[in-house]
Amino acid sequence: MHRSKLRATWDAGQPAINGWLAIPSILSVDAVARAGWTTLTVDLQHGTADYSQMLAMLPAIEAAGVTPMIRVPWNEPSIVMRALDAGVMGVICPMIETPDDARAFVRACQYPPAGNRSFGPVRARLVHGDGYPAVANDEVVPIAMIETRAALDHVDEIAAIPGMGALYIGPSDLSSNLGFGPGFDRTEDEMLAHIKRIREAAHGAGIKACIHCASPTYAAGKVKEGFDLVTIGSDARFAEAGAKAAVTSFQNEIG
Amino acid sequence: MHRSKLRATWDAGQPAINGWLAIPSILSVDAVARAGWTTLTVDLQHGTADYSQMLAMLPAIEAAGVTPMIRVPWNEPSIVMRALDAGVMGVICPMIETPDDARAFVRACQYPPAGNRSFGPVRARLVHGDGYPAVANDEVVPIAMIETRAALDHVDEIAAIPGMGALYIGPSDLSSNLGFGPGFDRTEDEMLAHIKRIREAAHGAGIKACIHCASPTYAAGKVKEGFDLVTIGSDARFAEAGAKAAVTSFQNEIG
Amino acid sequence: MHRSKLRATWDAGQPAINGWLAIPSILSVDAVARAGWTTLTVDLQHGTADYSQMLAMLPAIEAAGVTPMIRVPWNEPSIVMRALDAGVMGVICPMIETPDDARAFVRACQYPPAGNRSFGPVRARLVHGDGYPAVANDEVVPIAMIETRAALDHVDEIAAIPGMGALYIGPSDLSSNLGFGPGFDRTEDEMLAHIKRIREAAHGAGIKACIHCASPTYAAGKVKEGFDLVTIGSDARFAEAGAKAAVTSFQNEIG
Amino acid sequence: MHRSKLRATWDAGQPAINGWLAIPSILSVDAVARAGWTTLTVDLQHGTADYSQMLAMLPAIEAAGVTPMIRVPWNEPSIVMRALDAGVMGVICPMIETPDDARAFVRACQYPPAGNRSFGPVRARLVHGDGYPAVANDEVVPIAMIETRAALDHVDEIAAIPGMGALYIGPSDLSSNLGFGPGFDRTEDEMLAHIKRIREAAHGAGIKACIHCASPTYAAGKVKEGFDLVTIGSDARFAEAGAKAAVTSFQNEIG
Amino acid sequence: MHRSKLRATWDAGQPAINGWLAIPSILSVDAVARAGWTTLTVDLQHGTADYSQMLAMLPAIEAAGVTPMIRVPWNEPSIVMRALDAGVMGVICPMIETPDDARAFVRACQYPPAGNRSFGPVRARLVHGDGYPAVANDEVVPIAMIETRAALDHVDEIAAIPGMGALYIGPSDLSSNLGFGPGFDRTEDEMLAHIKRIREAAHGAGIKACIHCASPTYAAGKVKEGFDLVTIGSDARFAEAGAKAAVTSFQNEIG
Amino acid sequence: MHRSKLRATWDAGQPAINGWLAIPSILSVDAVARAGWTTLTVDLQHGTADYSQMLAMLPAIEAAGVTPMIRVPWNEPSIVMRALDAGVMGVICPMIETPDDARAFVRACQYPPAGNRSFGPVRARLVHGDGYPAVANDEVVPIAMIETRAALDHVDEIAAIPGMGALYIGPSDLSSNLGFGPGFDRTEDEMLAHIKRIREAAHGAGIKACIHCASPTYAAGKVKEGFDLVTIGSDARFAEAGAKAAVTSFQNEIG
Repeated sequence: MHRSKLRATWDAGQPAINGWLAIPSILSVDAVARAGWTTLTVDLQHGTADYSQMLAMLPAIEAAGVTPMIRVPWNEPSIVMRALDAGVMGVICPMIETPDDARAFVRACQYPPAGNRSFGPVRARLVHGDGYPAVANDEVVPIAMIETRAALDHVDEIAAIPGMGALYIGPSDLSSNLGFGPGFDRTEDEMLAHIKRIREAAHGAGIKACIHCASPTYAAGKVKEGFDLVTIGSDARFAEAGAKAAVTSFQNEIG
Repeated sequence: MHRSKLRATWDAGQPAINGWLAIPSILSVDAVARAGWTTLTVDLQHGTADYSQMLAMLPAIEAAGVTPMIRVPWNEPSIVMRALDAGVMGVICPMIETPDDARAFVRACQYPPAGNRSFGPVRARLVHGDGYPAVANDEVVPIAMIETRAALDHVDEIAAIPGMGALYIGPSDLSSNLGFGPGFDRTEDEMLAHIKRIREAAHGAGIKACIHCASPTYAAGKVKEGFDLVTIGSDARFAEAGAKAAVTSFQNEIG
Repeated sequence: MHRSKLRATWDAGQPAINGWLAIPSILSVDAVARAGWTTLTVDLQHGTADYSQMLAMLPAIEAAGVTPMIRVPWNEPSIVMRALDAGVMGVICPMIETPDDARAFVRACQYPPAGNRSFGPVRARLVHGDGYPAVANDEVVPIAMIETRAALDHVDEIAAIPGMGALYIGPSDLSSNLGFGPGFDRTEDEMLAHIKRIREAAHGAGIKACIHCASPTYAAGKVKEGFDLVTIGSDARFAEAGAKAAVTSFQNEIG
Repeated sequence: MHRSKLRATWDAGQPAINGWLAIPSILSVDAVARAGWTTLTVDLQHGTADYSQMLAMLPAIEAAGVTPMIRVPWNEPSIVMRALDAGVMGVICPMIETPDDARAFVRACQYPPAGNRSFGPVRARLVHGDGYPAVANDEVVPIAMIETRAALDHVDEIAAIPGMGALYIGPSDLSSNLGFGPGFDRTEDEMLAHIKRIREAAHGAGIKACIHCASPTYAAGKVKEGFDLVTIGSDARFAEAGAKAAVTSFQNEIG
Repeated sequence: MHRSKLRATWDAGQPAINGWLAIPSILSVDAVARAGWTTLTVDLQHGTADYSQMLAMLPAIEAAGVTPMIRVPWNEPSIVMRALDAGVMGVICPMIETPDDARAFVRACQYPPAGNRSFGPVRARLVHGDGYPAVANDEVVPIAMIETRAALDHVDEIAAIPGMGALYIGPSDLSSNLGFGPGFDRTEDEMLAHIKRIREAAHGAGIKACIHCASPTYAAGKVKEGFDLVTIGSDARFAEAGAKAAVTSFQNEIG
Repeated sequence: MHRSKLRATWDAGQPAINGWLAIPSILSVDAVARAGWTTLTVDLQHGTADYSQMLAMLPAIEAAGVTPMIRVPWNEPSIVMRALDAGVMGVICPMIETPDDARAFVRACQYPPAGNRSFGPVRARLVHGDGYPAVANDEVVPIAMIETRAALDHVDEIAAIPGMGALYIGPSDLSSNLGFGPGFDRTEDEMLAHIKRIREAAHGAGIKACIHCASPTYAAGKVKEGFDLVTIGSDARFAEAGAKAAVTSFQNEIG
């Protein structure tokens, strides 16, 4: 089995650029997949794909040479394991708040003895090859979202859970939980301090730091600060913004 | 049954702005539907929706207060009638080349005695009301695409077919068929002359003139020339362009 | 964002009439949606829709001017939050038995600081407008099903959980759990006493009382007793009963 | 391969009762399938199922012990043959107007040398057994709809096409084409004469006569006149009527 | 309601042969369904069907005269109950490790007072008849997978939970958890001892013993040892092996 | 745009091995895709996939490094063009009987001026690159099925149509039409003579010769005779045969 593009990018000391997929269709995946992403994440939490639609999107991501990831809707072993069996190479889990949350999540991502992932890589073996089971624990990247005050309180312990691959900042929930209201690309001093704190916790534990961004400029700034993966926009946001810009521009021109 | 937004816009002497849907999902429809369109067209020819996916997209278009239209894959009565039964209020038909093509197309859109549309408005009656059958022949807009040299040769006859609602210029096929290679927003003198000729043929017959555009600027120019409906972009193009712009901008910023 | 039809109906002191959707199709929604309902509930517990089919049914409900609700299969935050992100305005949760159950359920329905709903109203913002996040906690109605003896024991505490919107009687499970066997429209004295007790608990806490009914007559009786929402029948039951009546009537006529 | 329930019913000199399926779901099929029908017809013309949804409905029809039929959207060999390969045992074809139409339709239903049905009974062989190819030409029933004036003019010739199994009256299109406006259960003298004429043409040619009805009473009357198959109502109509009756009854009771 | 083929087979003292379905399609079910199976199990854990696809597969299994079963992805009441409502007659639950796990699982399979299964057999009643609720607790077979060391430690207690129907050995997870690496058809002495131990625990408690096998030979051996149900292969494995064999054989022949 | 694996194989003077897909799922594609095929053909005629399911299968074929092809249900331009827009690189068309049939088919596969393919490669451009339109006429392979007596009569003319890429023998329909009954791998002298005749017609016109086979041995024989592409088996046949073999073997062992 080849090293995934995500692992290879990190091995080379480069930052990963992650795209976000909320629209459950093949064409929307193909429309965005060749823009230059390292990874593409199917969002099963706030996106509208469900498991079977996600499965249909994976081959399109793979055919584009991009590493497929998923955000699960919740820290539940069934969907974590099903997504891994389908062949995703990274799993982003929301609302990790305690070391126990983190441990349960990582265990669901790893085969025994490291974890309790059930054996049955139905599609992963077919597409990644017979060598998949032997390297899965090393290749798959479990990524814990840090997005509540409780999570901030335990961020070092969460980062230190053996097998954890990265911390991922969900700025909208984090700021919402801290009283700032939802929204990406935060610039408040307190939020910036938390963002820095999480990045340092990840790096202090020898794992990666990731953050969800809206604008390329904000994302670039975060990479310069040392983040290892930045998410920029989403398919639905691109479509929405493009449609609004087109109609508005047209209406302005015809007065 | 209320006058459709398309009919009402034209009744008021205003141009219609048409959006184009190639992605078969609810979310992508919702993402673009409230940008200010008069109509949204599900493309069953060069888009990737099929009939059942189109049917699932119609309620989202209707709930946004936009008039649903369809482009059929070919001049075949079965899909024209099925789309009308599903509730679309406009049908764009590709490759109309002769008066016979046009007559067959219009007949498929109209109940007897004007046409041979089979009776069974399974969803149209439910969503447009019990009055739908009585007004369907007046409300539904059959739109013939003019996109070949043969069509140019018969454009006046096509426009004059009783019941025809509009001519629609497919610039990419038209220029391809005339030897210019495919592409939207044509500026060659010959192409401009053809575009003008088609618009005048439509207006000479008392029907509407429509054109498929890529850029808002080109579309605005066409409206100023007198076109009654302009299509701008598509959901897939918006998503593709947005993704490319985001990654490129990010890469430029990080050097 | 407009007040939902459900909230507006209750604001006006009127009872809500709720329809029940077990069939996962657009056409079946359209077939029943304009009968006069205040709300239509997609049943993810005992109906056959799953999340993605529910999402496809919502636009049809919305286009009919009816408030979309859901019954979740279980008290799990992932499906509660996903349904809210899809745009439903009411959530009925089965098997609420304790104040802890109720508190967890309500928290999943509400943004911080009131609850722990994760932020990402992917479709809700598109269809309900940019003002959705600010009013979501007030507009969304969490509805707890009372259907076990344990729930009866805690009914006042459950009704008093801050943010709870209504209690909903599931007569079939309730009577089943109390030893009467399953079935709607109960008339046993003991069942009537429980039904009254639950209604009074709801009203005592200043929230609404709802009940699932089979016949319009039973439902009308419950409204006269003071219930604020009654469910009558279901799409599948209407289809089943209609088919049986048609064939039986035919067979009787031909002897 | 067993004789289908339809063939067996006719062999026994009994009339067949046909149910009509416009809703593409498993549950709606199951809800109506055990009401006592001889056959159930998936309507691909004015219903909303497409081919793949029809295929998913067939096992539910078969499991209920009912003979599956289809109405194709148009007289096109591709969908006729695909439906037969999927295992349907009767095909109703709309808009048969001439002997040539009829001949082409019957040929698409029959293997050489009788017809030009392409060989590949992918699902039919699996569910009907290895003996299917040998008896398919005898078991499958091609049914021509008579619904235009032109069809009336050729009704005897159409009935006499070798291999034709039955004529089927589409009263709504027929009356619409004759100037009466659409609608089932016609009682005009002229319409009754046409209906009688078609029945006699079928029986004169030694084939069966079928008619689409709305009410059981009308259907029973037609059976008494000698019709061999009557369709009564449809799943969508049952659901619509049931919902309207329930809400209306409720509203009347609460005043 | 008829006794299921599984119950009838066991009543007759015969072993059951179970087929395994990982491919979510009608045709793949039909392709394998008539091979001679007692039961067919849709795998929602390591297969790729989700709930709605499973529901579409059930009628094809039923029409073939085979008893439908499911493996749920996890010990969660929502999916257990939804599958039962859809009409499955056996439920295999992975990762049962303690008596509490087992008790919760069995309770989800049984109506009160034996369990807490919620009432609403939406499809089960339609296909199994009005008598379904009365016999469901006796007909449905809850089957606990024994696949971890913890499960081995509690195997007698798990087998003794009232209402438990069978124990099912997942050899791949069991051997993986015991340090042997994943794989079916184990022949290590220690594994054979565990397999025997589980079988004896089941029979000691008066319930059935089942095991997942790859090869027919291994399965036959287990039946001779006394196992009551053996699973052989899977649809995806048959397809994969057939394709490989065909291409390899061809390549060998052309040298 | 890279040369397709099919074109590259033929450029290298090697025979192509084609797999056949009748099951519409991702997993079944993945299960067979890496067996060593040059091409995989989604069968829209006698398989059960429809257009949207075919589209979902293409990325899985592409990700496996195999060239995707399609068999269309009939010689209709709409489905030929839609499949090409989706990215298939070869199109097999059934029932080509005359030079006019062949010409219409090839024209639907080619952009002007060679043909009348409408421009809009919605997915083909995304996955094959911006260079796709310029090379599509050269890369896409139109393949005409020869399967009737009429086709035999015109086989040289059909092979000589400019742009035709290959002839494909459908042995089952051909033998059925010639009075031998359906079936693959024909050994009758007359059939062998026809098969030879078609191969020579193809090669005489400078195009490729293809044949549908059941067994690897028969296919290897045909390659040795000079055929350029052989189809072996199908996913559904592999699954069916595997299931039968497993159960039979088991039953034999237990006596």
